[in-house]
Amino acid sequence: MLTKKGSATRQRIIEAAATEIRERGIGNVTLDDIGRRSNTGKSQLFHYFPEGREQLLLAVAQREADRVIEDQQPYLSELTSWEAWRRWRDVVVDRYRRLGVNCPLGALITEIDRRTPAAQEVTRQLFVQWQRQVEIGIRQMQDLGEIDPELDAPSAASAVIAAIQGGVVILMTTGSARHLEAALDFCLDHLRGAQLRPSGKH
Amino acid sequence: MLTKKGSATRQRIIEAAATEIRERGIGNVTLDDIGRRSNTGKSQLFHYFPEGREQLLLAVAQREADRVIEDQQPYLSELTSWEAWRRWRDVVVDRYRRLGVNCPLGALITEIDRRTPAAQEVTRQLFVQWQRQVEIGIRQMQDLGEIDPELDAPSAASAVIAAIQGGVVILMTTGSARHLEAALDFCLDHLRGAQLRPSGKH
Repeated sequence: MLTKKGSATRQRIIEAAATEIRERGIGNVTLDDIGRRSNTGKSQLFHYFPEGREQLLLAVAQREADRVIEDQQPYLSELTSWEAWRRWRDVVVDRYRRLGVNCPLGALITEIDRRTPAAQEVTRQLFVQWQRQVEIGIRQMQDLGEIDPELDAPSAASAVIAAIQGGVVILMTTGSARHLEAALDFCLDHLRGAQLRPSGKH
Repeated sequence: MLTKKGSATRQRIIEAAATEIRERGIGNVTLDDIGRRSNTGKSQLFHYFPEGREQLLLAVAQREADRVIEDQQPYLSELTSWEAWRRWRDVVVDRYRRLGVNCPLGALITEIDRRTPAAQEVTRQLFVQWQRQVEIGIRQMQDLGEIDPELDAPSAASAVIAAIQGGVVILMTTGSARHLEAALDFCLDHLRGAQLRPSGKH
């Protein structure tokens, strides 16, 4: 259990590491750089992260995962109107367009090794939390009579999360946000029940 | 320019390497293993791949990318009925469910280093080709009166590709095909103009 001061120092180290990694890339950041930026000595670093670099990187990954959700607020938690959905769509696109080919969380998870259980747990939790918020949003719109009550909210939320994830992966490869935008717009059109002209043939 | 026989030998080496990598994982496969499996000596290997291991891996990545498209045939090239779309959806889900957390193409691209121009070109070409086929399918269904002619086919095809990509990435992390299925079903529902009950409020 950390004291309040200890907890603040630990957080300062994590934030310093996150900033260094965002600015200069994970391959170029040493524990010395992080100590310098956070005004902490090596012994202090190892006091808070006794297992060393990997333990610190995992804490930074958790911080970046939290930030993924934070960056979508306040919209993600209040998807109670189509205007809120539209704004949420815009912050998601803006966030990833700004990051471009550099996804800090992706870089950290790759560095830690995405197959380790601890790394998987960070991403798993992020997706669970993200998807739950989208699902709550869909249910709220159903309660408001804005989305068909027969739509299966958990499946639809899974589809939205997959669409975002795919758009981001393609953005990270190509540098273009076009797929992410198309995917989100497609999902929102379907949720709104945007009327594609029925064919009458099926 | 390779002779017909040379070309066949080169292809045999690539197929042997692809099979070895699929069976035992890229980290465990040596050039000796590939030589043994393809009945080719080291000097022959270097005759066809003078730049060595990376050049061979790139050729295998191209082979795996071709296979991504092949595995979706004949459906992907003939998306001219909802039945064909449904079958295509099923082969995509089956393909990736069978591969599970092991995506041979992904492993190869990671090993080559996904930032190299040659690796990026392999994935880029795959996505261009895949998306073009989906777009052609959408246009065909529009011509048949089965999809609203006002739907923007290129954007919709981008959205479908992003949804698949996201579903596959999540499958590779979690081992579950649930997101991939939900994402594809969501896209198909929208393309069919599946009637979500209009809210009448917007």
